[in-house]
Amino acid sequence: MILKAKRVVAGDGKTVWLDGAVRLNGEGVITGVGPAGEIAQHSAGEEVCDFGDASLLPGLIDMHVHTGYWWSEPDAESYRDNPYRIAYFALDTLGRALRTGVTTVRDVSSPGGCMQAMRWASAERGFFTLPRIVHCGRGICFTGGHGWPLTGGVVEADGADNVRAAIRRELRDGADWIKILTSHRTHTPEFTQEELNAAVDECHRRGVKICVHAGTHPSIQMCIDAGFDTIEHATFLTREQAVQMRERGIAWVPTIIAYTYIYEQLCDSSLRESIAGGIDGAALSDFDYFRQAAEAYREHFKELLDTGVVTLAGTDMVLHGAPVMPVWRELAYMVEYGMQPLAAIASATSLAAQTLGLSGETGALQPGLCGDILVVQGDVLSDIGALNRPVQVYRSGRAVL
Amino acid sequence: MILKAKRVVAGDGKTVWLDGAVRLNGEGVITGVGPAGEIAQHSAGEEVCDFGDASLLPGLIDMHVHTGYWWSEPDAESYRDNPYRIAYFALDTLGRALRTGVTTVRDVSSPGGCMQAMRWASAERGFFTLPRIVHCGRGICFTGGHGWPLTGGVVEADGADNVRAAIRRELRDGADWIKILTSHRTHTPEFTQEELNAAVDECHRRGVKICVHAGTHPSIQMCIDAGFDTIEHATFLTREQAVQMRERGIAWVPTIIAYTYIYEQLCDSSLRESIAGGIDGAALSDFDYFRQAAEAYREHFKELLDTGVVTLAGTDMVLHGAPVMPVWRELAYMVEYGMQPLAAIASATSLAAQTLGLSGETGALQPGLCGDILVVQGDVLSDIGALNRPVQVYRSGRAVL
Amino acid sequence: MILKAKRVVAGDGKTVWLDGAVRLNGEGVITGVGPAGEIAQHSAGEEVCDFGDASLLPGLIDMHVHTGYWWSEPDAESYRDNPYRIAYFALDTLGRALRTGVTTVRDVSSPGGCMQAMRWASAERGFFTLPRIVHCGRGICFTGGHGWPLTGGVVEADGADNVRAAIRRELRDGADWIKILTSHRTHTPEFTQEELNAAVDECHRRGVKICVHAGTHPSIQMCIDAGFDTIEHATFLTREQAVQMRERGIAWVPTIIAYTYIYEQLCDSSLRESIAGGIDGAALSDFDYFRQAAEAYREHFKELLDTGVVTLAGTDMVLHGAPVMPVWRELAYMVEYGMQPLAAIASATSLAAQTLGLSGETGALQPGLCGDILVVQGDVLSDIGALNRPVQVYRSGRAVL
Amino acid sequence: MILKAKRVVAGDGKTVWLDGAVRLNGEGVITGVGPAGEIAQHSAGEEVCDFGDASLLPGLIDMHVHTGYWWSEPDAESYRDNPYRIAYFALDTLGRALRTGVTTVRDVSSPGGCMQAMRWASAERGFFTLPRIVHCGRGICFTGGHGWPLTGGVVEADGADNVRAAIRRELRDGADWIKILTSHRTHTPEFTQEELNAAVDECHRRGVKICVHAGTHPSIQMCIDAGFDTIEHATFLTREQAVQMRERGIAWVPTIIAYTYIYEQLCDSSLRESIAGGIDGAALSDFDYFRQAAEAYREHFKELLDTGVVTLAGTDMVLHGAPVMPVWRELAYMVEYGMQPLAAIASATSLAAQTLGLSGETGALQPGLCGDILVVQGDVLSDIGALNRPVQVYRSGRAVL
Repeated sequence: MILKAKRVVAGDGKTVWLDGAVRLNGEGVITGVGPAGEIAQHSAGEEVCDFGDASLLPGLIDMHVHTGYWWSEPDAESYRDNPYRIAYFALDTLGRALRTGVTTVRDVSSPGGCMQAMRWASAERGFFTLPRIVHCGRGICFTGGHGWPLTGGVVEADGADNVRAAIRRELRDGADWIKILTSHRTHTPEFTQEELNAAVDECHRRGVKICVHAGTHPSIQMCIDAGFDTIEHATFLTREQAVQMRERGIAWVPTIIAYTYIYEQLCDSSLRESIAGGIDGAALSDFDYFRQAAEAYREHFKELLDTGVVTLAGTDMVLHGAPVMPVWRELAYMVEYGMQPLAAIASATSLAAQTLGLSGETGALQPGLCGDILVVQGDVLSDIGALNRPVQVYRSGRAVL
Repeated sequence: MILKAKRVVAGDGKTVWLDGAVRLNGEGVITGVGPAGEIAQHSAGEEVCDFGDASLLPGLIDMHVHTGYWWSEPDAESYRDNPYRIAYFALDTLGRALRTGVTTVRDVSSPGGCMQAMRWASAERGFFTLPRIVHCGRGICFTGGHGWPLTGGVVEADGADNVRAAIRRELRDGADWIKILTSHRTHTPEFTQEELNAAVDECHRRGVKICVHAGTHPSIQMCIDAGFDTIEHATFLTREQAVQMRERGIAWVPTIIAYTYIYEQLCDSSLRESIAGGIDGAALSDFDYFRQAAEAYREHFKELLDTGVVTLAGTDMVLHGAPVMPVWRELAYMVEYGMQPLAAIASATSLAAQTLGLSGETGALQPGLCGDILVVQGDVLSDIGALNRPVQVYRSGRAVL
Repeated sequence: MILKAKRVVAGDGKTVWLDGAVRLNGEGVITGVGPAGEIAQHSAGEEVCDFGDASLLPGLIDMHVHTGYWWSEPDAESYRDNPYRIAYFALDTLGRALRTGVTTVRDVSSPGGCMQAMRWASAERGFFTLPRIVHCGRGICFTGGHGWPLTGGVVEADGADNVRAAIRRELRDGADWIKILTSHRTHTPEFTQEELNAAVDECHRRGVKICVHAGTHPSIQMCIDAGFDTIEHATFLTREQAVQMRERGIAWVPTIIAYTYIYEQLCDSSLRESIAGGIDGAALSDFDYFRQAAEAYREHFKELLDTGVVTLAGTDMVLHGAPVMPVWRELAYMVEYGMQPLAAIASATSLAAQTLGLSGETGALQPGLCGDILVVQGDVLSDIGALNRPVQVYRSGRAVL
Repeated sequence: MILKAKRVVAGDGKTVWLDGAVRLNGEGVITGVGPAGEIAQHSAGEEVCDFGDASLLPGLIDMHVHTGYWWSEPDAESYRDNPYRIAYFALDTLGRALRTGVTTVRDVSSPGGCMQAMRWASAERGFFTLPRIVHCGRGICFTGGHGWPLTGGVVEADGADNVRAAIRRELRDGADWIKILTSHRTHTPEFTQEELNAAVDECHRRGVKICVHAGTHPSIQMCIDAGFDTIEHATFLTREQAVQMRERGIAWVPTIIAYTYIYEQLCDSSLRESIAGGIDGAALSDFDYFRQAAEAYREHFKELLDTGVVTLAGTDMVLHGAPVMPVWRELAYMVEYGMQPLAAIASATSLAAQTLGLSGETGALQPGLCGDILVVQGDVLSDIGALNRPVQVYRSGRAVL
C-alpha cells in the first residue's frame, strides 16, 4: 500500500519530502519512503491512498502519561474497589489517544498490573489495537510524597534499601522503566540524595532506565547529580542545569501543557474551584504555583532549549475533562516558545524513540520500521496546530480511523 | 434511516414481512416496521440501506453466558492475580459476541464486579458499544458444589440464612438477577430444599428473579418445587416436570449446545484429553455424562417442547477455542429437534425479553423499542443456519460491523 | 502364585479350609481359594509359598484409627507449625500398621489433607505401599467439644446449618465418610438432637456414611435416634439400645482396647501421671471413667453382642508408646468377652468391608477380591492371640514383610 | 560383616585395593579396609558378602539437589495448598536417590520445614532410611530474582539488613548452610556487591557456610569477591576466576548435567515445548542459553579443572521425568571432559565431605567412618558408567537394596 501526501515528514528533525509517499508491506512495515514518483516506480498495481493537501508524519510518542489515573473522575469513589472500572477507563483513554495520532506512550505510573495487562491484551492476544506501551508499573515516592494518595498508582518506599526493593518489585511485575517522584509544589526535596542515587544505581546496573518527577529546587539538581535518564517537568530548570543535563545525556520532558492548562483553567474563576478540587484537594493557594510554572516555561524554554538538552514531548493530563494526551498542544507550546516545527516533531517522534530504545521499531518514516503513521490535514510545518486535525492514523500499518 | 430486506422477522413467533423495512430515528429507536412500500411512504429523503436477499430480525438474546470465565484459557494462571487480564478478556469476548448478532446477554456468573463495570463502561460512560447486559454477579453454590473451584465467579454459602446473606451481597454489589447452582454431573442434589426455598423467597419478596443450575434428578424437581424463574440445563427433564414448569411459569434454558459440543469434542479421541482437562479437571469418565446429556436433548426435546414450557436460548460456552456465544447454533439444534424456525427465533428474542422484563426495550422489531437488529444473508425461515451469516448488526440503531 | 497353610479362614464368619490355599494372579487379585489339592490342580508350574502350620486370613480392617494424631508424641510441640513432621509421623504409623496385618483402615479424623495426600502418594502415585485408606477428613465437634484442642484434626461447628457447612467442607476436600464427636467423659451431650439430625441428613441425602463418637448417656440414644451409620465406643450401651441399633442397621465399634489399655496403664501408679497428661491434660480424676468403661465392656459385651448388633473392630490408639492399630488385641478382648473366634475375625474383615462398601474389593478370601492377606503363625481359631504373630502380609498380592 | 569385591576404591582420589574388603561392625561403622586377605585375618567367623567382579566405593554425595521442588510435576496445582503432598513427593525422591547410591545430599533450597522434618524422621526418629541430609532451608533471592516464582522454596530479601535477617530466619528454622541466588539466564547481576558481602559476613561470623547460584558475568566475579564457600553452576567461569577460587578456597559445583540434559531435551523438537514449559515458563528463547551453557562446560571444563579449583558433583535435576539425582552421570561428564575417574569419584565423596565438614563421618572407606557404601557391577575405574549399575547400597552399614 502506498500513502501519498503533499508533505511527508521523516521525523528526524530535518527531512521532508514534498509530494512524498510511504510504502507499507502486508505486515504493516515501511518498505519505502521518498518522493512519490520514485516510490510509485517500484510499486505498480499497489493500492494508493492519496491524502492530498495533508502532512504525513510518524505517529506521535507521548513520553509522560498516566493511563490509569481515575482519581479526578466524577465517579472516582466507585473505582476504588473495582479494578474492572479502572481497566475499562484506562482502555478507553488509550484508545482515544490512538485516534488522535499517539501511537506510542510511556506510562509513568498507573495502577499495578493495568498497563501490563493492556499490553498483553493488545500486543499478545490481539484483542484491541492500541498504542505501543512502555510502562513504569507503579511510581515510587517517599512516605507522604507526591502522588501518595493516588492509591494503586504510586507506592511509598523509604531508605535506599527499600527504594531498591520497590524497584525490584515493579521490575518483577513487568515494568520496562522505573518512575520515581521526588518533589511536589514546594522547595522541599522528598527523597534524600542517597535514596535517589540508590534508585539510579539499582536500575542502571540492571540495564533499566529510570525517570523522575522533579519540578523545584533543590530536587532538580539532586536528580541531575543522581544521573536519571529523563527528568520530568523540571519546571524551574536553570540554564546551567540544562547544560549539565546535555552533558550527562539526561533528557528533559517539560510537560508545559500540564501546568499551563491548569493555570489557564484556574484563571477562569468560575472553573477555579472545581479544578482546584481536582489537584490533590489543594485549594486556591496552588494558583500561584501554576502561574509561576506556566511563566517559567514561557520565559525560559528557548534559553534552555538552546543549551542543546534533549527535550521530549509529554502531556501528563490526568484531570477529568482535560484533553486526552494532547501531544499536538505540547508541541504547539514548544513552537510558540521558540522551537522549530521540524524539531518539535522530532521531539515527539525520533528523539523520543531513541530515549525509549525503540529506534529500530518506531519514531520515523524509514524503511524497516513499523508503519506507525499520522496523517493530518494541511501543512504541519507552517502550522503546528495542523497536528490537531488528524485525517488518518496507522498503527503498524493498520488504519485506525 | 430505513433498513430494507427481502424478509423482516418481527420476533414475536409469527409475523414476517416479505420485502419489509424497519425505520429508525436519530436516537436509534424503531419508529416503524412493515412492508417496505408502506414504510417508505412516510420517510421521503431518509437514508435507505437495502440489504436485498437478506433476513432482518431482532438482535439475539443469549440467556446463559459466563463472560468472564477465563479458567480454560491457555495462560489461565496469569489471570489469577491480575483482574485487568480478566477485564480485557471479558471485554473481547462480549465484543465478539455482539459482532455475531448477540445484542443482549444474561450473564449467569462472572467474577465479582466485572459485568457491573462492563455495563457501566458501555451503557453509562459510552466507552464501548456492547450488548445490553443483565447479570447475576457471582453464582452461589454450596460448599464444594458445582463451580466452586472457579475462583472469583462462584461463592459458597450454606444454610438458609447464609444463602440469603449471599444473595443480599450480590444484590448490594449490583446484580440484576441471582444465580444458584445445585447439581453437578451426578444425582446428588447439592442445596437442601429449605436452602432452595429460602433463595427463591429472598429474591421474590424483593422483586428479583432467580435462576438455577440443575441438570439431574432430584435437583430438577426440587427447583421446580422451590419456584425458580428459570431452570438452566434441566438436562434430564421429564414430560411431567415440563408440564409443571409451564403451569408455574418457569422457563427452561436447555443449553443444548453446551453438552452437545463437549460430547462431540470428546468423541474425537484426539481432542478428548485436552477438553477433558478443561471441564473441572474431570477425566474421560465424564464422557458418559455428556453422551447421555446430548442424547437426552436430541430424543426428548420435541416432547418437552410440546408441553408448552417456555424454552429459551442459552449457550454456556466457556471452553477455550469454543465458539463465542453461538446462539445461532443453539437455535439450529432446536429446529433440528423439532421446533419451528419462527418459534426458535422468538425463543432468542421476544420470549427471552419477556423473561428478562425487557419487552419494552428490546426483543422485537416493533415501534418504540431500541434498534437492536441483526441482518443475515439469505432466508432464515427456510435455513436457520443463515443466522451464522451476519451482514450487519445494529445495537440501539448503531451499526457494529 | 499359590499360598498354602494348614488353615485358610475365608473371613465370612464361617468358612475354614484345613490344608487350604489361595491363588493370586499377577495383578494381585485372588483367583482361587479352597482345599490346597483342588487349587493346585489348576495351577501346575506356579510358584507356591507353603506357610506350614500357619493360619491364612483376610488382611485386617481397623475401623477406628487416627493416623495423624501426634499430640501425645514427646516432641509434640515441634509438629504444630510443621506439617512435614506430621506427614512423616503419619506415614510411619500407617506403614507399621500394615506390617502387623492391617490392610485397610478407616481414619476417623486426622489433620486436613493428610490422609488424602497419603492415599494419593500410595494409590495414585505408587510412592509407598500402604493399607487401603477410607477417611473422614477432619472430625467435627461443637465448640469446646471432645477433641477440640487437637488442632488440625478436629474442627468446631455449631448449629445445624454450620454443621452441614462443615460436612460439605470435608467432603469437598476429599473425605469419604464424615465423623462427628458428641460426648466426652461426662453425661453431658454435646451436639443437640437437631444438630445430630442435620449431620445425618446432610450425609445420607448425598449417599455418604457418617460415624459418631458417643460414649455416654444420653448421647448414645440421641445418636441412635439420629440414625448414624456407626456409633463409636458407645461405652455404656444398654441392651435395649443395642436392639434398636440392630433394627436400624447401625453398627457398633466398641474400641474396647482403647479404654482398657488406658485403664490398665492408670492402674500402674508409676505410669499414672504420664498417661494422664496424655489424655487431654485430664488428671487422675479420669481414672474412674476409664475403670468404669473397662468394666462396662467386660461385663456387658456378651449381652450386647447377643442382640445381633453388627460389631466391628476399631482400636483408637493414639497415645505415644501404645501399640499401633492393635486389631489383634481388640479381637482378643472380644473373644475373651464371649465372641467366637471366627465371628471376631469377621468383625475385622468381611463385616467391616460391608460397612465400608468395600465388599467387592477386600475383607474376604474370595475370588475376584484383592489379595489383602495376613499369614500368622499357629492356629488362630484356637488361639486368637496368634494374630499377633504375623509371618507375612500381602497388600493386593504384594508381600510386605 | 565383611564386604569383598575385586576393587575397593577409598574415595581419597588415589587409593584402590584390588581384591579388597571393608569390615563393618554392628553399629555400621567401618572398622577395617584393605586387601581382602589382610582384613579376613582379623575377622574369623564374620559374615562375608563377596560381590565378585564389582567395585566398592564410598556412597555418593550430591552437592546440589532440590528434594522438594514439585513445580514441574504433572499435578503441580494440587501440591500448592497441601504440604502433605510435597512431603510424600520429597520423601519418595530422596528414597529413590538412596537406592542409586546417593548416601548424602546437600539440599540447596526446598519448601521451608521439609528437609528439616525429613532429617528428623530419618536420623532422629528412624522412621525411614534416607541419605544423610545437609540443607539450606529456603533459598534467598532478591525481589523478582531467580527462583522467586517457586513458591515455598525461595524467599525474597532486599538490602543488606534484610538479607541478614532472611539468613537468620533460615538458620533459626534449622538450616545447616545458607543458599543465595543472584543470577538467572542473563548478564544482569541480581544482588548488589554490598548485599552479597553482607550475606557472606553474616554466615561466616557465625561459622556457617554459604553457597550461591551464579552462572553469568559479572555475578560470578561478584561472588568470588564476596567469598562464598561454594559457587553453584558458574557456567561461564573463566580460567582467571578459577585460579582466584582455588586461591580463596572456594569450591565449584558446575552441575554440568542440569544444563546439558535440558539442552539435549530441547534439541529434540518434540520435547522442546513441554520441557520449555517446565523451566519457569520460559519459551524456546532459552534454548540458546542452554546450548551455550552446555558448550561452555564441554569446551572449558578441563582448562578450569587444571587450575586446581576444587570441583564437586551436583546434579540439580528438578524437571518431572528427569533422572533423580544422577550423580553417576555428572561424574561421567567430568570424565568425558578430561577428569581422571579416581578424581571424579573423589569429587563426589571425600572432597564433598570435606567441604561439608563431614570428613569425620562419611566420604571415604576409612576406619571410623560410617558405612556409607556403594557397590556397583564391573570396573568403575575403566568405565565410570559402572556407577549406574548399583548392586547394593549401604547406609551406615544397613543394606538398602
